[in-house]
Amino acid sequence: MKIAVVGVGLIGGSIGMAARGEVEHAEVIGAGRDRTRLERALARGAIDSAADSIESAVADAQACFVCGPVGALGDLVAQALAAAPADCVVTDVGSTKRELCAAIDDERFVGGHPIAGAETAGVEHARADLFQGATWYLTPAERSSGLLYERLHGLLVAFGARPVAIDPGAHDRLLAAVSHLPHVLANVLVAQAARTRAEQGESLPRVGPSFRDATRVAGANSAIWTDIYLANREAIATEIDETVRRLEEVARSLRAADGPALTGWNEQAGGDRRRLLEADLQGGPVHELRLSVPNRPGIVAQVALELGRGDVNIVDLALAPAADMRSGAMTLWIAGDAAAARARELIEALGFSVSEAS
Amino acid sequence: MKIAVVGVGLIGGSIGMAARGEVEHAEVIGAGRDRTRLERALARGAIDSAADSIESAVADAQACFVCGPVGALGDLVAQALAAAPADCVVTDVGSTKRELCAAIDDERFVGGHPIAGAETAGVEHARADLFQGATWYLTPAERSSGLLYERLHGLLVAFGARPVAIDPGAHDRLLAAVSHLPHVLANVLVAQAARTRAEQGESLPRVGPSFRDATRVAGANSAIWTDIYLANREAIATEIDETVRRLEEVARSLRAADGPALTGWNEQAGGDRRRLLEADLQGGPVHELRLSVPNRPGIVAQVALELGRGDVNIVDLALAPAADMRSGAMTLWIAGDAAAARARELIEALGFSVSEAS
Repeated sequence: MKIAVVGVGLIGGSIGMAARGEVEHAEVIGAGRDRTRLERALARGAIDSAADSIESAVADAQACFVCGPVGALGDLVAQALAAAPADCVVTDVGSTKRELCAAIDDERFVGGHPIAGAETAGVEHARADLFQGATWYLTPAERSSGLLYERLHGLLVAFGARPVAIDPGAHDRLLAAVSHLPHVLANVLVAQAARTRAEQGESLPRVGPSFRDATRVAGANSAIWTDIYLANREAIATEIDETVRRLEEVARSLRAADGPALTGWNEQAGGDRRRLLEADLQGGPVHELRLSVPNRPGIVAQVALELGRGDVNIVDLALAPAADMRSGAMTLWIAGDAAAARARELIEALGFSVSEAS
Repeated sequence: MKIAVVGVGLIGGSIGMAARGEVEHAEVIGAGRDRTRLERALARGAIDSAADSIESAVADAQACFVCGPVGALGDLVAQALAAAPADCVVTDVGSTKRELCAAIDDERFVGGHPIAGAETAGVEHARADLFQGATWYLTPAERSSGLLYERLHGLLVAFGARPVAIDPGAHDRLLAAVSHLPHVLANVLVAQAARTRAEQGESLPRVGPSFRDATRVAGANSAIWTDIYLANREAIATEIDETVRRLEEVARSLRAADGPALTGWNEQAGGDRRRLLEADLQGGPVHELRLSVPNRPGIVAQVALELGRGDVNIVDLALAPAADMRSGAMTLWIAGDAAAARARELIEALGFSVSEAS
């Protein structure tokens, strides 16, 4: 199968490598504006050959992945469709879908969005297993060809991904809630803390682990994120409106010193998070284990290795107070009753005390 | 020196262990409502002896640490002060300070707040090095005794902590911004995502690493947090008001499709986060290194061990797309130019590609 990849960065390069590794008789043709980037992709084995133009890349392709930045996808997809044969499926990998899908009306087009490492750019980070186990959203339209959808679906499964069909609008609202809004809040949090710091003098505040966690994505790559914010601006603004409503309610409970309301709200949040992690993993109920570990190098590594050997899936991990991976208390989230029990045994065998959060 | 510890959980127990380990001729007397908890503290070596009451614990003490829950501190501190000798310094470890310090008017009292592991409760997690390198806020009042303040300061230094004096109101505003507000936003985020999930059907959304990071503290222990929210309700509500203002501004930029405004806001946030991490560490400029790592067990451990051996301080760490510590791309934040350069070399020697975020 001839597969065209337009834009060979992290995602496009990884698609090429996955196709070359996992799809029988795959021939991957790369296209892109930047010749040196294409050469790097060739050298890295992400593509079999580099085309001079999108037109020549898709000329006799059976599948085409358009991997440009969100703001350029409309033009690139249209260009690919104009040159692609009648039986070529064309898809994209943009993180918003409504605008693009509304603009493209072609039975060969199926919008797509793999949930995989958007932050590490460049073909040098591409790898064949980037999509292993990753959700890959697909947004087929009513007039999308069933045959071509099936072909695309099969390719994604070959890459190790889990294709999930979703309405473009629902996709964008979903991503607004679980990805774009967290980025917005992280930005707001650091701005506010920086203002506080300026007021308190240069030596303050010392930020704690909860702050580090909450703001990890603050100021993520603007070249990617401004496009995402703009492309999904309506859904994000709607989510922000809801956040504002919820925050105003919390402020009211605080000002009323309403302890029971605050406790109820906090308990609800704990339950919500556990259920979201569980749904994410489908590995059974999530257990929250707390460990005390001594101050010495490599302790996180030791615990991680031990649980890895014991085949325990660590859903999530938090370190407190230090994030330097050398000291402190650890919290582990483990999916499944049996796995959590095994984790407790393995950790206790290492000589560390464990307790489970209620 | 006789040191009374009222309340021997994680913090009180760790104070006892640090005092017994690091302070010459220290004798630690524990007090608390729960006799079995005192027995556990004795068995763990956190205290030398268990007193029957606060009064007998402080009777001839030179220092007293009150480690109860925030809501009970007013009464406990007053009780300790009523029974303590004239030359005994009395402090607490509550995470809000304004209400307490306004209520207590005694030259022997200095409010305190160590920034260390509030989430892992219980003396079984106590350890002598819990405060190593940790900031320990102190809120001396105008009439606090200089001599007693000096004694307390010396004890904290002996524990390995870094005492920082601060006005109680400034402390609470600071903690509202860098600790309490992140907890509020985490709760709001999960509630909103759970609502989205309910709307989209049970199988969605698959939450990504940015969501996991941003919501790690959602629903933190209500027994601790309701008290904190109530004790610092004014400062938190004020911070929420500011968050609402900032969010409304972002929503306006989004609805106006104002790309330059969004880019400027996002770039500012990236700079703010770097500066906050740098101020936190004082280890030089923070570098953001991005690694591609293959899908195999123990890879995070391998990198962590290697950098640990190379004495590189990892300020912060993020995994994407998987948080199971077995796969994916890693982002490392390293403080200091030399350390970052060393980290790059070590990682490249392991055979992984590294790039630095601009």
